[in-house]
Amino acid sequence: MNVHGKHYRTIWIHEDDPHVVQAIDQQVLPHEFKILDLTTVDEVAHAIKAMLVRGAGLIGATAGYGMYLAALNAPRRSREAFLESVRAEGEKLKATRPTAINLEWAVHRQLRGMEAAADVESMIEAAFQTANLIADEDAEFCRRIGEHGVRLLEDISRRKNGETVNVLTHCNAGWLAFVDYGTATAPIYAAFDRGIKIHVWVDETRPRNQGASLTAWELGQHGVPHTVIADNVGGHLMQHGLVDIVITGTDRTTYTGDVANKIGTYLKALAAKDNQVPFYVALPSSSFDWQTRDGVKEIPIEERGGEEVRYIRGLHNGQVVEVLVTPQDSPAANYGFDVTPARLITGLITERGICPATEEGIRGLYPEQGG
Amino acid sequence: MNVHGKHYRTIWIHEDDPHVVQAIDQQVLPHEFKILDLTTVDEVAHAIKAMLVRGAGLIGATAGYGMYLAALNAPRRSREAFLESVRAEGEKLKATRPTAINLEWAVHRQLRGMEAAADVESMIEAAFQTANLIADEDAEFCRRIGEHGVRLLEDISRRKNGETVNVLTHCNAGWLAFVDYGTATAPIYAAFDRGIKIHVWVDETRPRNQGASLTAWELGQHGVPHTVIADNVGGHLMQHGLVDIVITGTDRTTYTGDVANKIGTYLKALAAKDNQVPFYVALPSSSFDWQTRDGVKEIPIEERGGEEVRYIRGLHNGQVVEVLVTPQDSPAANYGFDVTPARLITGLITERGICPATEEGIRGLYPEQGG
Repeated sequence: MNVHGKHYRTIWIHEDDPHVVQAIDQQVLPHEFKILDLTTVDEVAHAIKAMLVRGAGLIGATAGYGMYLAALNAPRRSREAFLESVRAEGEKLKATRPTAINLEWAVHRQLRGMEAAADVESMIEAAFQTANLIADEDAEFCRRIGEHGVRLLEDISRRKNGETVNVLTHCNAGWLAFVDYGTATAPIYAAFDRGIKIHVWVDETRPRNQGASLTAWELGQHGVPHTVIADNVGGHLMQHGLVDIVITGTDRTTYTGDVANKIGTYLKALAAKDNQVPFYVALPSSSFDWQTRDGVKEIPIEERGGEEVRYIRGLHNGQVVEVLVTPQDSPAANYGFDVTPARLITGLITERGICPATEEGIRGLYPEQGG
Repeated sequence: MNVHGKHYRTIWIHEDDPHVVQAIDQQVLPHEFKILDLTTVDEVAHAIKAMLVRGAGLIGATAGYGMYLAALNAPRRSREAFLESVRAEGEKLKATRPTAINLEWAVHRQLRGMEAAADVESMIEAAFQTANLIADEDAEFCRRIGEHGVRLLEDISRRKNGETVNVLTHCNAGWLAFVDYGTATAPIYAAFDRGIKIHVWVDETRPRNQGASLTAWELGQHGVPHTVIADNVGGHLMQHGLVDIVITGTDRTTYTGDVANKIGTYLKALAAKDNQVPFYVALPSSSFDWQTRDGVKEIPIEERGGEEVRYIRGLHNGQVVEVLVTPQDSPAANYGFDVTPARLITGLITERGICPATEEGIRGLYPEQGG
């Protein structure tokens, strides 16, 4: 997508140096646009854990490139030593964040690819190819999600006789959360590019403000009309007919249709149900969890430090600083995600089309996943 | 209640100078404890509008004291000139904030009292008496709300064999929002003082962070265990059995039981319903609206400036500063309240007891309000 008019992906291999992976530093957005250089798995693990890069798809793609760096830096004396090293580095990457399934998926895909190669050189080559493939697929899958999802927005636009379509989204499931296009945003960009009148309510998304700082920024860069709101506002807007559709992303969706996504998604899904507003979740197949039946009971929910709630980062006198918003001695809890039960979800928008959030609906699109 | 161990109300007449009304400045809490001097209606109107004082009961009490200052400063040449002046000042106060019904109620109560007095001197005396009476009643009603509400917490504590009772609250319906005790917090303080093990989940309450900055502060001053959470978290906590009861305040409740309260309350009520968590609203009778049937359709919802969403106030290097959290050019919308339909509310805790959130239930406690 565009940044100051130039096309960017969120992560890529350095044009002039194949030993360096580059990524957009999302910690200082929207106030600064900065590119990170990553050359070791430890740097990659830190970038994921400290959320310099974040978002389901981008975490997967970053893990893919991380495994490529692991391969570059692994001992080359034997196939076994090489594999032992990259497997250990894979464990390190998998331990960074527990909820997004794309992370695990990307590490295993890289390991399978390397295990299938005959010698160290071809293992490194395989890791390079797979890393790029994961990124390319991510972008292509998001593009297709846009193609499928845009039909929902076209329908609403038609029903409203061309009046503005109001979409509400939570957190950032935008191109910054993937390699390009995004998931929840892909139909929005596609609609905007086709000239459909569209406006996005951007949930601020406390405590890390991914909506206020990332979604608002990328929509603004693309010229899409949007309004930032506190997370508390969505229910009121829906009660008053000001939201036509909710589209969010997901960090992990069970094969039964339960959706783990950024904390607060469940509250918006309840409000959508209560006001008959369609609630869609957009995801590439890499975000499905084919093992887990009951999302609320079984998906591990990341707890992060309370300091992320107590302090808020923002721009003051031209500098990015943190301010304390609670009393000095009040503790805070910080759950990263919640699970929205399938019964609250109108449909899933995938790269293969739109389906109901049910086991039958999902397996209908992905028959190769068995039953 | 206590501040650094000393008893305070939120508003009072200066001990040594009856021409000065004093109030706690809630804009700089929790980082500074500062007392405001108010001597004119314009200062009072500014304090309400800019939210130096806020909260349903305190807005009412402040309007009561504001009308006393109006009386002090009114022309004394004739009864008519005096009344004309205080009525105009009353209109000024009523125009400061549209949602809290206590504001209108206090202004009218003051006007009725003055209109009934024979001469200017007795009108001023009446205004003084009524202002103090409104404040005393507010404190006494809140104390009684505590007496009634504490039984709910005692029941839960008994059912849990004395294990910690987890209460979730939204915004600040604490003593800072009233003259003393608070409404939602009154049962909590009563339970804590009786030795019931209690813990409060404090919703941060964006965009103005009344939970993080005020509720957390006053609970901390009283020694009540509490944890600040982002507004997004409550649903997840309820899904996992970590909330035993929700208690909030209200800025206006219709005689049919619809509750206008700080934006986001409706989302918590939906989550409580979905997880069979009891959801109570605590209020003194001054917060009932005896004219309005349909809260969602009819209660006016205040819209405030988007800058309150775009900028967040907090402590940085020992100073209270504002930081920008959105992109420089992203607009923000700022709805102050939402309306929770009566069907989502388990009961109302009033100074006269607890009743269902229905017309029948409410009129049962307030038969004098007719039908």
